[in-house]
Amino acid sequence: MTGVTAVRVACCQVRIAIGDVNGNADRVWRAVEAAASAGARIVVVPELANSGYVFTDAAEARSLAEPVDGPTVTGWVDLARRLDVVLVGGFCELDPDGQVRNSAVVVDAGGVRALYRKAHLWDREKLVFTPGDAPPPVLDTAYGRIAVMICYDLEFAEWTRLPAVRGAQLLCAPVNWPSLPRPDGERPSEIIRAQAAAATNRMYIAVADRVGDERRVEWVGGTVILDPDGWPVGGLALGREMTVLADLDLDAALDKRINEHNDVHADRRPELYAPIYRPQGIS
Amino acid sequence: MTGVTAVRVACCQVRIAIGDVNGNADRVWRAVEAAASAGARIVVVPELANSGYVFTDAAEARSLAEPVDGPTVTGWVDLARRLDVVLVGGFCELDPDGQVRNSAVVVDAGGVRALYRKAHLWDREKLVFTPGDAPPPVLDTAYGRIAVMICYDLEFAEWTRLPAVRGAQLLCAPVNWPSLPRPDGERPSEIIRAQAAAATNRMYIAVADRVGDERRVEWVGGTVILDPDGWPVGGLALGREMTVLADLDLDAALDKRINEHNDVHADRRPELYAPIYRPQGIS
Repeated sequence: MTGVTAVRVACCQVRIAIGDVNGNADRVWRAVEAAASAGARIVVVPELANSGYVFTDAAEARSLAEPVDGPTVTGWVDLARRLDVVLVGGFCELDPDGQVRNSAVVVDAGGVRALYRKAHLWDREKLVFTPGDAPPPVLDTAYGRIAVMICYDLEFAEWTRLPAVRGAQLLCAPVNWPSLPRPDGERPSEIIRAQAAAATNRMYIAVADRVGDERRVEWVGGTVILDPDGWPVGGLALGREMTVLADLDLDAALDKRINEHNDVHADRRPELYAPIYRPQGIS
Repeated sequence: MTGVTAVRVACCQVRIAIGDVNGNADRVWRAVEAAASAGARIVVVPELANSGYVFTDAAEARSLAEPVDGPTVTGWVDLARRLDVVLVGGFCELDPDGQVRNSAVVVDAGGVRALYRKAHLWDREKLVFTPGDAPPPVLDTAYGRIAVMICYDLEFAEWTRLPAVRGAQLLCAPVNWPSLPRPDGERPSEIIRAQAAAATNRMYIAVADRVGDERRVEWVGGTVILDPDGWPVGGLALGREMTVLADLDLDAALDKRINEHNDVHADRRPELYAPIYRPQGIS
């Protein structure tokens, strides 16, 4: 895990509060600074980290939305420069066309390296956000090739496959996972789905969830870093305000072989899958 | 779980031994009879249940292969008629072209209802079997619409998606899961991947694994029945020779909604996935 090429990755499980723009910014900044002090070079913070999540209506979301050159992302770029980290975080975006988006950025010392808009909207997000139509960005950073998507996006195996076949070594996912019923002894099902996505693509996945009840929604606090076998590394953060840290050998994700004869990507048979993936779809 | 439309499903975790054709047949028969006596109407038995798995070479596999109208499947049809069950099982097939296949059948009182040939071959299977080129069959039975695939097939999310979008309520999977290293406290990763496939499609999945060491391969014994939330029902069978039984309301799998605004299939965006699912593929 800690070879010469290992990079320390941090996922900050931060308390976020609806509409508390300054408080949210402070908590995110402090978490990122602490992660960098602990040696992290890639830091992931939650979905909608500037605004909170449980909007009363679309107007409230719009009132909290910012352009990508607004204070939240500009501040994150300053932070990334000062700390020399790659920072991935979610924010409530007002896009240049005036649409409100559930977005995420990858920023580093070079500025905003990628902007992603959530393509699969969860529940009442459909009343608030315009979904994105672009695939998850895959980009080379100082520490490896990373990709980004947001929360419910992770549950579509075609969507996680996309950056994986494009060579992403680490998929960073800002999320807000609501607490849903589950049997005793089981971990949140969102983690299980992410484990499957990691293992079936032999790709690291770093998920930063939030905590803090908000307008009667309870968050599960499922921050986790998964290795290419799909196993959690660096611990689970269930429900607590904390940061998960892990030293990852990202080059391990370049090798898709699992034994002498199998390779999880080369073993795919896209010619057989094609019938249900025509552009018009069948469902 | 036990509404008026519930059907009892059994997955028989049987001890199989390489080349012990009569012993394997006896153990499978007894397990299916016991499952039917316990009220099961759909019964799943393991992959390669006639032959065993760890072939020395292709010639040994060929020597144990049978046509679909050979004694194994003919016997299963007789059994299904007598017990009035739908039986799904894997067998080592000699196909009409003389190719050796890792196959599975669905049989019921009407005879052989479907024949499937494993499309994603595991490890040394590539030296022994010709892979199938046809999608997993989806067929209506007296107890609901079921589909079948085999073992490593389950780890390709595109492959499990296919029968799901074609309306399968229950995916039956004969498997032979080798025991692989895993962290303390974790269940076999194959189960986690199947859980994700069940939950992201809201489809039941019934997996019948084997037990019994064979030529230094240890089997994990991961037989499990998963509900449309991806949770195990009826218990886990880890490592023991036993049958997992569960009463399933298969109609629950017809409803893909998970809240007022989300539907795990309608939320898919196949037009965005299409670029990596062109017939020629990209990987």
